[in-house]
Amino acid sequence: MNYYNKLERHAKKLSRLGHLNAICGWDQAAIMPNGGAQARSEAMAELAVISHELATASYLENWFTEAETEELTPEQRVSLVALKRQWMMQNILPAELVEQQSLTGSQCEHAWRSQRKTNDWEGFKTNLKPVVELARQEAAIRAQATGLSRYDALLDIYEPGMTSAVLDGIFTEVKSWLPQLIQQVEAKQATEVTIPLSAPFAIEQQQALSLDAMKLLGFDFEHGRLDISTHPFCGGVPTDVRITTRYDENDYTSALMGVIHETGHARYEQGLPQQWRDLPVGEARSMGIHESQSLFCEMQLSRSESFSRLLAPMIQQAFDSKEDSLSAENLCLINTRVKPGFIRVDADEVTYPAHVILRYEIERDLIEGNIEVDDIPAIWDQKMSQYLGLSTLGNFTDGCMQDIHWTDGSFGYFPSYTLGAMYAAQFMATINKEMNVEQLVSQGNLTPVFEWLHNNIWDKASTLSTDKLVEQATGETLNPEHFKKHLIERYLNN
Amino acid sequence: MNYYNKLERHAKKLSRLGHLNAICGWDQAAIMPNGGAQARSEAMAELAVISHELATASYLENWFTEAETEELTPEQRVSLVALKRQWMMQNILPAELVEQQSLTGSQCEHAWRSQRKTNDWEGFKTNLKPVVELARQEAAIRAQATGLSRYDALLDIYEPGMTSAVLDGIFTEVKSWLPQLIQQVEAKQATEVTIPLSAPFAIEQQQALSLDAMKLLGFDFEHGRLDISTHPFCGGVPTDVRITTRYDENDYTSALMGVIHETGHARYEQGLPQQWRDLPVGEARSMGIHESQSLFCEMQLSRSESFSRLLAPMIQQAFDSKEDSLSAENLCLINTRVKPGFIRVDADEVTYPAHVILRYEIERDLIEGNIEVDDIPAIWDQKMSQYLGLSTLGNFTDGCMQDIHWTDGSFGYFPSYTLGAMYAAQFMATINKEMNVEQLVSQGNLTPVFEWLHNNIWDKASTLSTDKLVEQATGETLNPEHFKKHLIERYLNN
Repeated sequence: MNYYNKLERHAKKLSRLGHLNAICGWDQAAIMPNGGAQARSEAMAELAVISHELATASYLENWFTEAETEELTPEQRVSLVALKRQWMMQNILPAELVEQQSLTGSQCEHAWRSQRKTNDWEGFKTNLKPVVELARQEAAIRAQATGLSRYDALLDIYEPGMTSAVLDGIFTEVKSWLPQLIQQVEAKQATEVTIPLSAPFAIEQQQALSLDAMKLLGFDFEHGRLDISTHPFCGGVPTDVRITTRYDENDYTSALMGVIHETGHARYEQGLPQQWRDLPVGEARSMGIHESQSLFCEMQLSRSESFSRLLAPMIQQAFDSKEDSLSAENLCLINTRVKPGFIRVDADEVTYPAHVILRYEIERDLIEGNIEVDDIPAIWDQKMSQYLGLSTLGNFTDGCMQDIHWTDGSFGYFPSYTLGAMYAAQFMATINKEMNVEQLVSQGNLTPVFEWLHNNIWDKASTLSTDKLVEQATGETLNPEHFKKHLIERYLNN
Repeated sequence: MNYYNKLERHAKKLSRLGHLNAICGWDQAAIMPNGGAQARSEAMAELAVISHELATASYLENWFTEAETEELTPEQRVSLVALKRQWMMQNILPAELVEQQSLTGSQCEHAWRSQRKTNDWEGFKTNLKPVVELARQEAAIRAQATGLSRYDALLDIYEPGMTSAVLDGIFTEVKSWLPQLIQQVEAKQATEVTIPLSAPFAIEQQQALSLDAMKLLGFDFEHGRLDISTHPFCGGVPTDVRITTRYDENDYTSALMGVIHETGHARYEQGLPQQWRDLPVGEARSMGIHESQSLFCEMQLSRSESFSRLLAPMIQQAFDSKEDSLSAENLCLINTRVKPGFIRVDADEVTYPAHVILRYEIERDLIEGNIEVDDIPAIWDQKMSQYLGLSTLGNFTDGCMQDIHWTDGSFGYFPSYTLGAMYAAQFMATINKEMNVEQLVSQGNLTPVFEWLHNNIWDKASTLSTDKLVEQATGETLNPEHFKKHLIERYLNN
C-alpha cells in the first residue's frame, strides 16, 4: 500500500470515529434522558482523546512527505491537499491551549446562561476576557503557520480562502444601501395588513406538516430522520442525517421554517458524493456554502410567493382550517415581513446582514487587537443605531450578550451566514437563467432545481476551492449584486 | 499511580468505548434509517478494532503481575480478580478464530433467514457445521486455559462457576417431575374458560400502558427510555438504560409482558453500584442472575393473581374498556395459561424449562463431540416427544431451526434462562419470608420488594461469586426446589 492509500485509510478511520461521535452527540441533544449526561460526556471525551491521538500521530508527517512524491491521479492529488489541510488544522494548536479553551469556553457559556437573564455585563466580561485572550493566541499561532492575518487565520477555519479584505469590500458596499433599503421596505409594508395566525397549532399536526415539507423538498428518509431538540440543528452523517426542530404551539412558522432550513443543510449532506465518502475532500465545501444550501431552501425557495401558494393548501390541510390567516397571500406577507429587531436569530432576511456585519466588524477588531472586550457594548450600540436604528445602551441582554456564539471562542464564523445568503441568491439567479423556477414551484416540481444544486454544488464536495466552485456553477465568483437584486425584487418591486 | 489504578483507568476507558457502542447499537436497532446501515457497521467495526487493541495491549500482562504484588484494599483485590478475568476472556482467542467465527456466524444467520421459511435443513446444516466446528475450537482453547471441560468452558462465559455436572443434576431432577406436572396443569386448565381478548388494541394506548407498568415497577426515567425495535432488548448503559418492545395490535399482552420483562433487566442495570461504575466488578453478576431479575418481574410478580388485580384497572383505563375479557380474573387466566408448543420464545412459564433442557443437552453433547450436527433433528424430535409430547419429525422450521441462537455459535447461553427462573423463585421465596408480598402488591407498594433486590442483588454487582451472592441473599446456594414449589403452587394448588 502506498502512502497516499495509507493516509486515506487513516482518514476513513477518523471519519468513522466521527460517525460515532455524531450519532452519540445527536442522541445527547435529542433524546438522552438527563441522568445519562455525565457518563455520556465522559464517553465522548474518551473518544475525542483517541481521535486526537490518531489525528496527530507522529508518523503522519512522514506519510505526507512520502505521499507527495508518489504518482497520484489528479483526483488523488486534490484529495491529498484536503487530507493535509485537515491534518495541519488538527496539529497546529498545542494541546494545553485547546484544553484551556475548552475549559474557559465552558465556564463562560455556563455563567452566561444566568448572567444574560440579569443583564450582568460586568460578570460576563470577566469570563469573556480570557476566552478572547485564548482566541487571540490561537489566531496568532494560525496566522504564523498560514501567513494570514490573525482574524483571517480564524476565518479560514470556516471559509477557506476568504479574507477580511474581501469581506470589508463586500460589507462596505452592503452598508451603503442596506439601511436605506430597510427603511423603504418598512415604509412599503406599513400599509400592508397581515392577518395574525390563530393559535394554538397542535404539535402533532406541526410534525406532520414538517414531514410533508421535507418530502416536498426531497429529503431522503432512507438516509435521515426528523426529531426534536431544544436547539435545532442538522447532525448525523451523510448516510444518516439527523435534523431536529422544536415546536411552538403559538406559532407553527418557526418550526416549519426551521425544518425547511435544516432540510437544505441535510440535502447537501445527503448529496455529497459516495466516491469520496469518509474523506476530507468529500466533505461540504465551507460553512458559507453549507449555509447557502439551507438559505436557498428557506429564503430563496420557501419565502417566495409561488412557494407560499404551494405550501398554503398543505398548511390548511395539516391544521384542518381554511381561515383567511392561512391563505397563500397572508402566508406570503408573514414570511416576508421586515422589522428591525435586537435579536439576530429572530431577524428577517433583509435585516439579518446588518446583524452579521456588526458582529463581523467587532470580532475582527477584537481578534486583531484593535479593540478590547470592555469596548464592545459602546461599539455595539453605535453600530446597532447606525445599521438598524436601535439603541442597546445598557441593554446587554438584547445586545452583546444575546447569544452563545462568542462564549466558546468561535470567532470567524459569523460572516458565513451572510456569505451563505449571497451565494444562495447567486445560485438562484443562475438557475433562473436555465429554467423557470417560479413555474416549476407552482407545479410542485422542485426536482430540476435540486438537480442543479446536486450537479453543481453537492456532488463537488471539497474538490474545488469555494471560488472555483462558485465560478464553475454560476460563471463568476461571489457577486453580492445578486443578493441586493433579490432583496429589491422581493421586498420593493413585488 | 500504582498498577492497580492504571488497570482501573484502562478498564474505564474500555467501558466508555463500550458506552458509545451500546448507544450506537441501540440506535441501529431502534431508530436508524435503513440507508445508514453500512456506514454504521463500518463505524462500529472500527470501534471494535480499537477496543480489541486496547483490551489486548501487550503491556497489560505486566500491569497485572505488578498489581498482584501491590498492597490493595480487600475491595480492590476483588476488583482486580474481575479485571483479570475480563482481560483473560478477551485475550484467550486468536484474532483469526474470532474473525472466522464472525464471518461464518454472519453467513449462517443470514442464510437461516430464508432457509427457515423453506424448512431447508440440508442447506442450513452446511452452514451450521463450520459454526459448530469453530465453537469446538474455541471451547478447546478455553478448556485448556481454564482446566474446565469443553462445554463448561463456554458455559463459564455466561455463568461463571456453573458446570454441566451441576446442571445435569438439576435438570435430571426437573425432568423427573416436569412432564407429569405439565399434564396435570393441562388437565386442570381444560375446564377453565378464558374469554378471548377483543382486538385491536391501539399502539398509542399500548405504549401509554407500557409506560405506566414501567412506572409501577420503578423504572427510572431519568436514566432510561422505552422505544420500539423489531427484536425487543435491554441495551444502553446503567446511567441510560434503553429498553425496547414491539406492539401487536391483536394482542397487547406480548408488548406489556415484554416491557415488564425488560424492566426487570433495566432495574438491575440502573441499580448497579455507582462505586464500581465502568469496572468489571461493577457489572451484572451473570446472565442467569440478569435473567432472574427480568423473570422476577415478569413471572414471579406480574403473572401472580394479586398483580393481575393491580394491573387490570390500568389495562381497562388504557383501552377505555370494561369488557369481561379485561377483568382481573380473566387476565390472570390468560397470564397463566399452559400449553406445550414448538416454539421456545412463545412458551409459558411451565413448559419453558423443557425447551431449555432440550437445547442444553443437545449443545452440551455437540460441543463435547458426543453428537454431530447431522444428529440434531432426530435427537430434537425424540426429546420434544419425551418432554412435551410433540413431534418435530421433518419439521425443521419449528424444530432445530426455530431461532438464531446457535447460528452465531453462542453455545453455553441456554441454561441461563432456566437458571434465571430458578433464582427468581428462590429470591421470591426468601422475600416472602421477610414480608407479605401479596399484600404489598395489592396495595400497589412494590418498593420494599425492589429494595430487597437492590440491597441483596443489584448493589452487589460482581463483587461476589454467584454462589456466594445467592447464599448471602437467601441462606442457601441455588435450590431448584423453590422453582418446583412455585410452579405447583401457582398452577396446581390455586
